[in-house]
Amino acid sequence: MNLVAVGTVAFDDIQTPYGHAEKVIGGACTYIALAASYFLTPVRIVSVVGDDFPEETLEYLKKRGVDLEGLQIKEGEKSFYWAGRYHDNFASRDTLDTQLNVLADFDPILPETYRRPDVLMLGNLTPKIQMRVLEQVTKRPELVVLDTMNFWMDIALSDLHEVLKQVDVLTINDEEARQLSGEHSLVKAAKVIHAMGPKYLVIKKGEHGSLLFHRGDIFFAPALPLAEVIDPTGAGDSFAGGFTGWLAKTGDYSFENMKRALIYGSTMGSYCVEAFGIERLKGLTPAMIRSRAQEFENLVRFDIP
Amino acid sequence: MNLVAVGTVAFDDIQTPYGHAEKVIGGACTYIALAASYFLTPVRIVSVVGDDFPEETLEYLKKRGVDLEGLQIKEGEKSFYWAGRYHDNFASRDTLDTQLNVLADFDPILPETYRRPDVLMLGNLTPKIQMRVLEQVTKRPELVVLDTMNFWMDIALSDLHEVLKQVDVLTINDEEARQLSGEHSLVKAAKVIHAMGPKYLVIKKGEHGSLLFHRGDIFFAPALPLAEVIDPTGAGDSFAGGFTGWLAKTGDYSFENMKRALIYGSTMGSYCVEAFGIERLKGLTPAMIRSRAQEFENLVRFDIP
Repeated sequence: MNLVAVGTVAFDDIQTPYGHAEKVIGGACTYIALAASYFLTPVRIVSVVGDDFPEETLEYLKKRGVDLEGLQIKEGEKSFYWAGRYHDNFASRDTLDTQLNVLADFDPILPETYRRPDVLMLGNLTPKIQMRVLEQVTKRPELVVLDTMNFWMDIALSDLHEVLKQVDVLTINDEEARQLSGEHSLVKAAKVIHAMGPKYLVIKKGEHGSLLFHRGDIFFAPALPLAEVIDPTGAGDSFAGGFTGWLAKTGDYSFENMKRALIYGSTMGSYCVEAFGIERLKGLTPAMIRSRAQEFENLVRFDIP
Repeated sequence: MNLVAVGTVAFDDIQTPYGHAEKVIGGACTYIALAASYFLTPVRIVSVVGDDFPEETLEYLKKRGVDLEGLQIKEGEKSFYWAGRYHDNFASRDTLDTQLNVLADFDPILPETYRRPDVLMLGNLTPKIQMRVLEQVTKRPELVVLDTMNFWMDIALSDLHEVLKQVDVLTINDEEARQLSGEHSLVKAAKVIHAMGPKYLVIKKGEHGSLLFHRGDIFFAPALPLAEVIDPTGAGDSFAGGFTGWLAKTGDYSFENMKRALIYGSTMGSYCVEAFGIERLKGLTPAMIRSRAQEFENLVRFDIP
């Protein structure tokens, strides 16, 4: 099985009640690739950076099994930059600065070896760029997973609808599911969204867990109650990385195995938030991942006699 | 085992996006007693109404096994009345009117047969009234469960602290847990609240489920995703009724059995919101309750191979 992930590789400037991390490595694709790399390698990424992006980070990603052939490095240009500040309770954040830089005219190009992915993870980007990637695959992937956000629903809804027709799994948060479907009840929202294309809908609710909808079936994966959340940046992308990493590793796209993928996604998300940026994702081991997945099982296990 | 429940029996006026229910039967103790009555009878209630309260409702409660000896009926006075309007998404509500009436000078009196409860459920009331009840028991109950709200934290915090010293299980929502403890992390909040008295803390998060904390252990009970929520009024009290009803029925106060109590509480809450007021709680059967509890199990069941 092989996994191709598309998304940003970038610099972030993050302020939380715990401190200020300046110009640290970020970007959806970075989190996705790192999280997925604990499940299978290589993880093939499609992205773009400027020549300001540190060589040592690229070396580190390679060492973790991330294939950088699809990463464009633009000489004389700067990498995408995002600065944000989280409020005291982490429930909301303000964007302080966004500099598109290389992302402004990003044209994703899939190297020859990338064109037959089993699992294709389309990270949060303009729907047009996500579509451009789909146009280049020469074999329909077994599973296309797409992440998006309210911003694209606001300004590029028809493009989004177009790309959704080719998507198997959509991952969005609860407010976005309500916006996209026009339904408040998530059960009803899922039906509306299924009709747009995605057979599976994953609704991410942050500290409140996540839901998987597929035809009439529903699965709920809890979030692990944590004593300390340091930085929520990248939690959703780490989730996507664990989710697609597990599915690509196993090649099993049944509802039962999707449940496990949600748990491994939640596991990677729960580790991610324990430190600034990608730091916590660097030092994990398969044993740590398994043991935390087990914590999720303990958290919800009960029996009705 | 026997269960004594204290709280309001009242009239509600409820406006939701689905309609307007005028002067329907409500009150925390009504929901608690009805929900608990599916697990064991009699449910002994301590409350007060005016002579405007319908005889047929009292007859119905008796028929369901609710012992009304502790219900004071004040001649020439009116029952407690609350009017509220839910916003479109049910996430918040406005109180439109509150008429304390008989509640203004309510002095709870426990009949002789009520003074040795195994499980004592202190529904949401002023902490002083909750304390007055505790003063009248002649044997320490095996389990004292207390429900309260932010309002009492705002205006009667020291009274609340006083009564919490005698409480085994506190049930509050997540914002209230944060307010009471001064901690944002619920894991940290639980430690602070345990030190105030309650060995068990149940945090109710509405559509996001509930959490049980006990020493280092945590259990999460999901909420059932529902296609249609008609009226959330009484969901928390129905939860309390299912929770204490199950515990009083089984007499088992272990962490494992508390998990089941949370699930039965969630079950009763999930039924409650499917119709206005207490309507949905009237026509249930043990088979329906069991089958819905099973739905909760299906919702979170997964295996890590």
